Amino acid sequence: MKKGTREKILQEGAKIVHLKGYNNTGLQEILNAANVPKGSFYFYFKNKQDFGLQLIDFYADFIKEKWDSFYRQSEESPIQRLKQFFKWFLTMNEKADYKGGCPLGNLSQELADTLDVFQDKLNQTFIELKGKIRSYLKDAQDLGEIGKDLDIDDVSDLIFSCFQGALIQMKVARNSKSMEVFYNMLFELLSKKL
Amino acid sequence: MKKGTREKILQEGAKIVHLKGYNNTGLQEILNAANVPKGSFYFYFKNKQDFGLQLIDFYADFIKEKWDSFYRQSEESPIQRLKQFFKWFLTMNEKADYKGGCPLGNLSQELADTLDVFQDKLNQTFIELKGKIRSYLKDAQDLGEIGKDLDIDDVSDLIFSCFQGALIQMKVARNSKSMEVFYNMLFELLSKKL
Repeated sequence: MKKGTREKILQEGAKIVHLKGYNNTGLQEILNAANVPKGSFYFYFKNKQDFGLQLIDFYADFIKEKWDSFYRQSEESPIQRLKQFFKWFLTMNEKADYKGGCPLGNLSQELADTLDVFQDKLNQTFIELKGKIRSYLKDAQDLGEIGKDLDIDDVSDLIFSCFQGALIQMKVARNSKSMEVFYNMLFELLSKKL
Repeated sequence: MKKGTREKILQEGAKIVHLKGYNNTGLQEILNAANVPKGSFYFYFKNKQDFGLQLIDFYADFIKEKWDSFYRQSEESPIQRLKQFFKWFLTMNEKADYKGGCPLGNLSQELADTLDVFQDKLNQTFIELKGKIRSYLKDAQDLGEIGKDLDIDDVSDLIFSCFQGALIQMKVARNSKSMEVFYNMLFELLSKKL
């Protein structure tokens, strides 16, 4: 029951913060959406900042689990599975009329410059997420799907940059084009470099 | 004199919005920084939203002029000049301790989902900025610096995505790595595809 309440607060809070941002989301708004009293909130979260930090883990765990599940689908090649992840991510955004984008990218833009505790947390989270991309690239390199001379730490970093930037463009253009260009062209370029 | 006042308001507003975001910046804060009375503001801007829209042009004009000035430095190859632009952009951010990033990318994250008038304006602005990148790529393609088979509209889009995403990572990591990986690796990949 107690575990359920924490989850409910994070789930409802995640939806609101995703669309409105962290600063523009009031505590009362989250409590109303989750239908829990203020006391319950303070049982699980020290304050709004603590909630924000736990929310980063909540978003990241969702993405990491998805990345792991595509990783395990071994009937496709590593690069194909990585592309499938990005296609799945795009489909989610299409359903939301291209609004929202990456909640972690949004929080980075909003908070990294002003609150060191968020900057540090987001930095650690980005490193972990890039580690997931790296696992696919390691396998792709072992199988000769991408060049052996590529530095896969740098490639993970490049893919992560393109992904985040394509999502910004997606929000602004309200269409799929930049996301499709990103995962089609970048992986083609990486594969050609054999 | 009148032209100077408008410029002053935009210049001071640009600095504040760059670091704090549009929603978190109060009109009075801008007036104080520019040292102008409220009446002067309303002489040039209908309201805060109108100021925000003119601010997008102000930021974009600055970037476009810089892109044009690197474009004219014909002693280097087109791709080298394009890389120099990104290096210059990174140097500006290094001086600001990696805070700020791209003001237009920030506004996109903050406003594209919630205010259609900003989404439309930012979309037009991104199209214009990508047109500047395309000019370099057209020359690079004519000179054989990048492959003739590359769709340079798509490449402009990919470069713009990487640029924006690398800036998000820069803000979060507070170092130059993702920007350097972006402009070194991406242009190397594009050049190898001959």
